[in-house]
Amino acid sequence: MRTIEWNFEKKCIQAVDQTKIPYSYEIMDINTVDEAIDAIYALAVRGAPAIGTCGAMALALYCKNLPEQTAEAFYAGLDSEAARIVATRPTAVNLKWAVEKSVSEIKAANFDNTKDIFNKLVSIANGIADKEVENAKRIGEFGATLIPETGANIHTHCSTGPLCTVDYGLGMGVVYTAMKQGKPVHVYTDETRPRMQGTKINTFDLKRMGVPYTLICDDTSALLMKLGKIDMVFISADRVVGNGDVAAKIGVYGIAICAKEHGIPVYCFAPTSTIDYNLKSGDDIKLEQRPADEVLNICGTYVAPPDTPVLNYAFDVTPAKYWTAIITEKGIAYPPFSESLLKFKD
Amino acid sequence: MRTIEWNFEKKCIQAVDQTKIPYSYEIMDINTVDEAIDAIYALAVRGAPAIGTCGAMALALYCKNLPEQTAEAFYAGLDSEAARIVATRPTAVNLKWAVEKSVSEIKAANFDNTKDIFNKLVSIANGIADKEVENAKRIGEFGATLIPETGANIHTHCSTGPLCTVDYGLGMGVVYTAMKQGKPVHVYTDETRPRMQGTKINTFDLKRMGVPYTLICDDTSALLMKLGKIDMVFISADRVVGNGDVAAKIGVYGIAICAKEHGIPVYCFAPTSTIDYNLKSGDDIKLEQRPADEVLNICGTYVAPPDTPVLNYAFDVTPAKYWTAIITEKGIAYPPFSESLLKFKD
Repeated sequence: MRTIEWNFEKKCIQAVDQTKIPYSYEIMDINTVDEAIDAIYALAVRGAPAIGTCGAMALALYCKNLPEQTAEAFYAGLDSEAARIVATRPTAVNLKWAVEKSVSEIKAANFDNTKDIFNKLVSIANGIADKEVENAKRIGEFGATLIPETGANIHTHCSTGPLCTVDYGLGMGVVYTAMKQGKPVHVYTDETRPRMQGTKINTFDLKRMGVPYTLICDDTSALLMKLGKIDMVFISADRVVGNGDVAAKIGVYGIAICAKEHGIPVYCFAPTSTIDYNLKSGDDIKLEQRPADEVLNICGTYVAPPDTPVLNYAFDVTPAKYWTAIITEKGIAYPPFSESLLKFKD
Repeated sequence: MRTIEWNFEKKCIQAVDQTKIPYSYEIMDINTVDEAIDAIYALAVRGAPAIGTCGAMALALYCKNLPEQTAEAFYAGLDSEAARIVATRPTAVNLKWAVEKSVSEIKAANFDNTKDIFNKLVSIANGIADKEVENAKRIGEFGATLIPETGANIHTHCSTGPLCTVDYGLGMGVVYTAMKQGKPVHVYTDETRPRMQGTKINTFDLKRMGVPYTLICDDTSALLMKLGKIDMVFISADRVVGNGDVAAKIGVYGIAICAKEHGIPVYCFAPTSTIDYNLKSGDDIKLEQRPADEVLNICGTYVAPPDTPVLNYAFDVTPAKYWTAIITEKGIAYPPFSESLLKFKD
């Protein structure tokens, strides 16, 4: 199954519980908006396209057992729930995009009764999910053209496989497409502290896709670049600003600086649902900070005293000048991005 | 007590078991060369000046119960043990330096009997330890001049406190000296994966020294530099080449590149026992690789399947051009280092 799906029989969201990977592959039912918010915040559902889909499906959950009411009352309730869902994770724009798209389409449709609206919201959310899968496949095809016939050693940070999307993956979808084309590929996936999406989730996806890989610590990237072991860097975006600044998993900025220093290309993979044309610069993106315990406690064991002061940013912003290209489902954008990305705007 | 000492009553090495920090502060007895080698390899004794001292003291342990023999037989045995100790960790030069210094001084002295030689080796090793402490204090004084009266936010990687030396610390000795001079200081110590010397050992030293600090993940440095939260970077060296190339804990190279990109000074702290005038370039330094389990297993829990392929370099080399200054007990060297470091050669 996909990373996240709507279950028509149970009338609930079903999603892979990513906090259990790689120890077990478990599907969880999400029955309420609160459960969806909890799943997103706990990173049980994670990856920009997946949390967008989850947010849209959560709106359907809100309508599931709603008593009949006036249009005004319903819209007020829907807006309030939408705001609550969007606030769960402020950095990735897909969540905001998917939730606002759902609300806007519902408001544009006729207001009949909550059952019909529920069905419409399910349909909108499934449309978003289908589109994300289609987009990921197209990104895979565009991206694979960047890998030469002689193959490449590719460095990834954070999860870039099927589990970071609804299906297929972003950076890893590109790697998989290239591998199927007969190009020899090898991936250096780093740990991605503190949540270790590289160690836990990316290795899980790499293994089941049959891609050769090696795990490294986050602080090893620069050395491998110097030793000539890395040919290109693949990053999945959480928010792309129209000018080419990109918010992505904490650590991407440092990797991009080091890659530039070594003349290594850095590619950003982003469905256009990740592009935010409203902001002027990446400096305007709110960077989520998360609890100290994510750093201090690993698999239930404290690696430092629990009262240790911690600064735990979940994302950073890498300015446009560090990106070699940004690959979307509509094509590959090259600098200057403020011009090339504009062509992909609906 | 110091991080490592010779115990005259028990005729053994006593050292803080650094694998137990921060959970407990335990002193262990090291009674044989094999125990010393095991302690160094397991990082129970770690930090360039401390492992140098441990290596010299281990030679005394070799002589402790040695039967009387000819000078030739003794020197052959001593050379063999010295080579075995030096091979334990190939990157930090202090181990080699301290062991070779001991062997050379013993060979230069009269060969009497093993008891006298034992006492001489103990005396040489204690001399090395005393000199390292004195050097660390002098480095603290020279280094503190680099911190302005208005104070500084200092980024450190790996352990730089008393526990990385025989006593007093390197980068942290500088911070402590500045703090005593009334300069407001704050340290961002990073985790330093995979062994987490930043999380476990540096925070322990910072706390007991009363220095304000915040723990961050290794992949957060570049963002904090961009946000203006870091004024300078303090690194303790494992081997400084005469041309200014520096081998240090894995991750330093990436931090130095990012610091250069942001115009932030990067200071290297190194007693002259860490300087290797024999190599031409840092490219000639052998970079130790360590077991996969250091990455895969954290405090007894596997964070990835045990068969995950891993590349685990313990050190990297940061070329001379990234260092703002190298601070030794003999003074501060500025670029060009091939000239300025030559003045510190004995």
